[in-house]
Amino acid sequence: FTSFFNNLQDFAKKAIEMGRNDPRKIIFSLKMGFALSFVSLLIFWKKPNDIAQFAIWAILTVLVMFEFSIGATLIKGFNRGLGTFCAGMLAFIFAQLALWAGERERVVIVVSIFIVAFFGSYLKLYPTMAPYEYGYRVFILTYCILIVAGNRTREYNVAICTRLALIALGAGICLLINISIYPIWSGEDLHRLVVKNFMDLANSLEGCINGYLSCVEHDRDANDSEYNGYKSVIESTGREQTLLGFAIWEPPHGRYRMHKNLWRDFVKLSSALRHCAFMVMALHGCIQSEIQAPPEKRKVFRNELKRVGANAAKVLRELGTKLDKLEMLDSHENILKEVHETAQHLQKKIDHKSYILVNSKSWEIGKPNINHEDSSSENGSENLPLSSRSRSLSETAIDISSLQANWPQLAKESSEFTKSSFRKQNQWPSRLSLADGDIADTCEMETYLSASSLSLATFASLLIEFVARLQNVVDNFEELSQRAEFKEPDVIIPPSAIKS
Amino acid sequence: FTSFFNNLQDFAKKAIEMGRNDPRKIIFSLKMGFALSFVSLLIFWKKPNDIAQFAIWAILTVLVMFEFSIGATLIKGFNRGLGTFCAGMLAFIFAQLALWAGERERVVIVVSIFIVAFFGSYLKLYPTMAPYEYGYRVFILTYCILIVAGNRTREYNVAICTRLALIALGAGICLLINISIYPIWSGEDLHRLVVKNFMDLANSLEGCINGYLSCVEHDRDANDSEYNGYKSVIESTGREQTLLGFAIWEPPHGRYRMHKNLWRDFVKLSSALRHCAFMVMALHGCIQSEIQAPPEKRKVFRNELKRVGANAAKVLRELGTKLDKLEMLDSHENILKEVHETAQHLQKKIDHKSYILVNSKSWEIGKPNINHEDSSSENGSENLPLSSRSRSLSETAIDISSLQANWPQLAKESSEFTKSSFRKQNQWPSRLSLADGDIADTCEMETYLSASSLSLATFASLLIEFVARLQNVVDNFEELSQRAEFKEPDVIIPPSAIKS
Repeated sequence: FTSFFNNLQDFAKKAIEMGRNDPRKIIFSLKMGFALSFVSLLIFWKKPNDIAQFAIWAILTVLVMFEFSIGATLIKGFNRGLGTFCAGMLAFIFAQLALWAGERERVVIVVSIFIVAFFGSYLKLYPTMAPYEYGYRVFILTYCILIVAGNRTREYNVAICTRLALIALGAGICLLINISIYPIWSGEDLHRLVVKNFMDLANSLEGCINGYLSCVEHDRDANDSEYNGYKSVIESTGREQTLLGFAIWEPPHGRYRMHKNLWRDFVKLSSALRHCAFMVMALHGCIQSEIQAPPEKRKVFRNELKRVGANAAKVLRELGTKLDKLEMLDSHENILKEVHETAQHLQKKIDHKSYILVNSKSWEIGKPNINHEDSSSENGSENLPLSSRSRSLSETAIDISSLQANWPQLAKESSEFTKSSFRKQNQWPSRLSLADGDIADTCEMETYLSASSLSLATFASLLIEFVARLQNVVDNFEELSQRAEFKEPDVIIPPSAIKS
Repeated sequence: FTSFFNNLQDFAKKAIEMGRNDPRKIIFSLKMGFALSFVSLLIFWKKPNDIAQFAIWAILTVLVMFEFSIGATLIKGFNRGLGTFCAGMLAFIFAQLALWAGERERVVIVVSIFIVAFFGSYLKLYPTMAPYEYGYRVFILTYCILIVAGNRTREYNVAICTRLALIALGAGICLLINISIYPIWSGEDLHRLVVKNFMDLANSLEGCINGYLSCVEHDRDANDSEYNGYKSVIESTGREQTLLGFAIWEPPHGRYRMHKNLWRDFVKLSSALRHCAFMVMALHGCIQSEIQAPPEKRKVFRNELKRVGANAAKVLRELGTKLDKLEMLDSHENILKEVHETAQHLQKKIDHKSYILVNSKSWEIGKPNINHEDSSSENGSENLPLSSRSRSLSETAIDISSLQANWPQLAKESSEFTKSSFRKQNQWPSRLSLADGDIADTCEMETYLSASSLSLATFASLLIEFVARLQNVVDNFEELSQRAEFKEPDVIIPPSAIKS
């Protein structure tokens, strides 16, 4: 019993916390309470007409129509209105039929309910009818209410009209209260969601690159918020579509007055961003991969990878901030300049060092001219022509000759590495039995090793593709900012310029 | 007017078509019609007690509870039951309070409705409460109905009890009809969905590989069913979770009697499959990529890529068929053997030909010993030691020496290629101005070229990763088939074995 009480206390605490984080939820609930208790006043209205006996239909209408956002309320209201109207029309017709049928009245009523229920249920399963599912339900419900009420009082027309009037009254009160008191807009939620997507993706990109470089042991079931920002971006499709569906019903308001198709443009921008997020997902796939590149090789490209990631994240964050403020991009500078430069540096570095990504020993056209049987190769390699870019210590390049001269040792290390990665993941290739320590088939081992090195190339290549796709996001942003007439950014004039 | 009539005719045709494709939809609608008209018979029950005046509550209950599948109906029933029960309890308490309050009765009623509406609306916004959203709505609704009815008749307890009884009656009829007449199970839908995912992914994988090899010009907005099978696999998460939520409420039935956690295992298998689908998505990303590998180079790996794709698709299809029949895998043979072999062939081929993937000219450690200034290089390359695998004509390998000897021409071709790809996609690197035909910076051009070649390595590497992940799917399948005690496959004994 104590634990139940503690749970309850815990729940209450969290519920209060929720309200503190998003006060709109409290406001919504207050509005709902107010609307319902206002409508419930109808039950005391007994003179001059006995409105009270139909009051429940107004209450029911408020209850089903009152939604969190204005857009959702309007859609539900439209559904409710259309469904009620159709049901009313049909009820008039069948009521007339029932009266004509005389003593077969009951048969007509039951059959009419069967027909309405059948067609209502069947047509709402039609794929394009999904948004109106609620309308069909209202349609059947209202029809039943009207027919039952009419049958009871024997005055079909009066019964139908009073109930329709009460439903309309309930809908009116619901709309009035929801729109006039602190309206909650789906459009704002959509705007905030898209901005959040930009920030999430930036964090997630940096997280993935850092994770890859520090060779984290990835647990597939873990929900690391750092990596999984991209997931929320990818999974936000459904929520975006829902919010868009609500937002386009909302009248222009606040700072979103400028542009009719604004919401669609937001969603379009977000889908361009999602196109980038798929690349981050693929990068994350490299961390989860069955085939892993050895840590020493990752270190070689460490600085370049980090710099590309940091710059790309910076671009995303800047776009997110601009979008949040509804501000244009600075037209004088290219926001992508820096990230393109670093991506080219990465590409050049890969070019210069691609020997560590491939197994040049097995080239059909002959091996490269590094004689790895020569005992002096370690010094010899220093004499080989270097590229124009000088090799600094910070780059910590792996010397290919030492790598190949120490082949057996490397193979052992790699086998250690792969063994540990095999233990936590699945076997590849499946026939390789590394468990008992001896490498059965050197050829297969080499195949695995070169596959693992190539996976580093994959990582870099995916990152470069990410940068290429950023262009698309920036284009979309510029298009949006021009069509929606975003304000110019505040240009800060440096004091020196004023003086001169 | 004619066009409206035509549209209507068209709609009717499609609606009939829908019923023909999935007769369960017609059956559901018939059941719904039958249940509603059966309950509506209550409105004629006027002796000995006037049940008719409360009949609408039974009708309302049937209408909101009757869902397509058994599982969904049971959940709604549970929600309805719990909500109604709580509302009933609370109504008794507040009714007592209202009676005690004497002349302040009205105030108590309005305040109680406000309180119930506020807490009901607020708590349903609590994240973990999402599945019970409907229950909260029912709770508020029922409370209003009971209080209003009680206030009207002045006999709160009688009013509350009769209405609760009618709601229970409606729920009972609804469950009885939905379960006893041709039940529709969510579990079956889930099973079918997972099987379909296997088949979709197989088609999509083959489609992607063929598309990549034939260098289709990809239109980003096109919805090619061939490629986009993986999308339906990835997007099926939501639907799976919904179906799972319904399926676990369903009692064991039909051929699914064996195992309690069967549905969760199905979803687990499907999520392992989705892990593979992400790789197909990444493969498709290579087709949509801004950076494209030149077609000549793709041809080099054509056969290997195709063979891996075909074998992997075969494995997926076999697993799908087995799952459909609820059959175990053949324990005597490794289903993955063939696809692993072909993947290793691909890897070896990449090893042997990786010189076309990298730009060895710029290696810091020195260029490979192919003297491309030597005019006899084209013949010379024939004398270089070939790998143990003989080079057949069908492999259509690109000769590295001719490739490098003809560098300027290749560069021109590639620039043609990239120009056309630039026209339809975005610019990378953005500062490269290829529009006016002259290549400003050879260094940047080369960077682009080597990035584009590396993208082929990415494609192959992703495909190999796909094969590695297949192991996980097979493991999951085996686990499922053992826990759920699938039947052994029918072993066909060859006639020769019987004779001897």
